[in-house]
Amino acid sequence: MPLLDDQMAFLLTCDRLKGVERTTSLHSGQRMENSAEHSWHLALMALTLGEYAHPGTDLGQVVKLVLVHDLVEIHAGDLHFEASAAQLAAQAIQEKQAAQTLFGLLPGEQREAFQVLWEEFEAGQTAEARFARALDALHPMLLTWGQDGLGCTDRAPDLTQERVLRLKEPRLREFPAFWQWAQQLLEKAAEAGLLPSEQKAASPLPGS
Amino acid sequence: MPLLDDQMAFLLTCDRLKGVERTTSLHSGQRMENSAEHSWHLALMALTLGEYAHPGTDLGQVVKLVLVHDLVEIHAGDLHFEASAAQLAAQAIQEKQAAQTLFGLLPGEQREAFQVLWEEFEAGQTAEARFARALDALHPMLLTWGQDGLGCTDRAPDLTQERVLRLKEPRLREFPAFWQWAQQLLEKAAEAGLLPSEQKAASPLPGS
Repeated sequence: MPLLDDQMAFLLTCDRLKGVERTTSLHSGQRMENSAEHSWHLALMALTLGEYAHPGTDLGQVVKLVLVHDLVEIHAGDLHFEASAAQLAAQAIQEKQAAQTLFGLLPGEQREAFQVLWEEFEAGQTAEARFARALDALHPMLLTWGQDGLGCTDRAPDLTQERVLRLKEPRLREFPAFWQWAQQLLEKAAEAGLLPSEQKAASPLPGS
Repeated sequence: MPLLDDQMAFLLTCDRLKGVERTTSLHSGQRMENSAEHSWHLALMALTLGEYAHPGTDLGQVVKLVLVHDLVEIHAGDLHFEASAAQLAAQAIQEKQAAQTLFGLLPGEQREAFQVLWEEFEAGQTAEARFARALDALHPMLLTWGQDGLGCTDRAPDLTQERVLRLKEPRLREFPAFWQWAQQLLEKAAEAGLLPSEQKAASPLPGS
C-alpha cells in the first residue's frame, strides 16, 4: 500500500511538532507549551468561538487552517512574537523550504492541498485565515493572563500592557468582541501587577 | 461580556488536557504523549486519511469528534486500552459526570452541542464516529511500531502481536486499508522482535 505508507510517513514526521517548544507556558505555568497542543487548542477555540467570526466564515476551513498552520516548525522552529523584521524575513524563507520538504512527503494532490492551506493561513487574506490568525493572537494571552493566570512572561521581560496591545491589534481589532476582551484582560493584568504599564510608569506614583 | 467570559473559562479548563498523560509514548520514545497533542494528531489524520472513510462520511464532523473526544479526561483521567470490564464500567460513570461538569461551563446551546459530539464519539454508531474511532485505534500503533518505531510498550509487557490485533479488530476491520496496514505493521514488528508472537512462542525455534 504505497499511498497509505506515504501518508503514514507524513503523519509520523508530523509527530515531531510535539517537540517544538513555544514561548508560552501552559496556564498552570508548569511547563512551556508545544506547537501540537497549541494547534489543538486553537481548533477547539474555533469550535467554541465561531459566533464571533464574520458572517459567512467557513468554520470547518478555520479548523483546517489552525491544525496545519504550525507544521512547518518541525523543520523551521518557532519564533517569538516580538521577533525583529530580519528574524521574520529569515524565518519566512526557512518556512517555505520546510513546507516543501514536509508536504513533499504526501502524494501529489494532497501535497498541493496542504501547501494551499498553509499559504492561506500565512497570507491572512481570507475571512477564514483572518479569524484563524485572531485566535492565534488571543491564545497565548488567554494562557498567560486568563483568570488566575500566572503571567509567565520570563522570556519577554520588557513586555508592557501597551506593547502587547500594539502587537495584537492588527489581528484582533476587526473582531470587536475579541479586541474588547483583550483590552480588558490586559487592563486587569496590569492592575494585578502581572504586566507593567507604560502610562503608569511614566506618571509619578500617588503620594510620591 | 459574560458569554465570552464563560467560553474563555471553558477553554482555560480544557488547557488541563495537556497534562493528561497517555499510555503511549511519542514516536521518538522521549516521553509519554498527552491527550491534547494526541487529539491534534487524530484531527490531522482525519485531514490526511479521509479517502479511506466510507463514501458520504462528513470529514468535518470527524474532525470535531476527535478534537472533543478526550476532553472528559480532564476530570476522569485516561484508561489503558487493556483495562478490565469493571474498570471500563467505573470509567464510563466518571466520564459522564466529567462531561456534565466540563460542558456545564458553556452557555446552554453550546453545552448541548459539545455533549452531543462527545456522546456521538462514545456511541460509535454513525459513520463519522466509526471512522474517528478507527483513527483513534490506529494512532498508538503508528507511534509505537511505525517505521523505525522504538516499540515502547513498557506499560503493557504481556502484549503480543495476536492480542493487539484482537483488541483493534472491532474498530479497524470495516476499513480494509487500515486493517491490512495494521496487520502488516504488527507482522513487521514481530519479525523485528519488537512484539512477541503467540504462534512463534508456541512452536519450537528452528534448530532447537
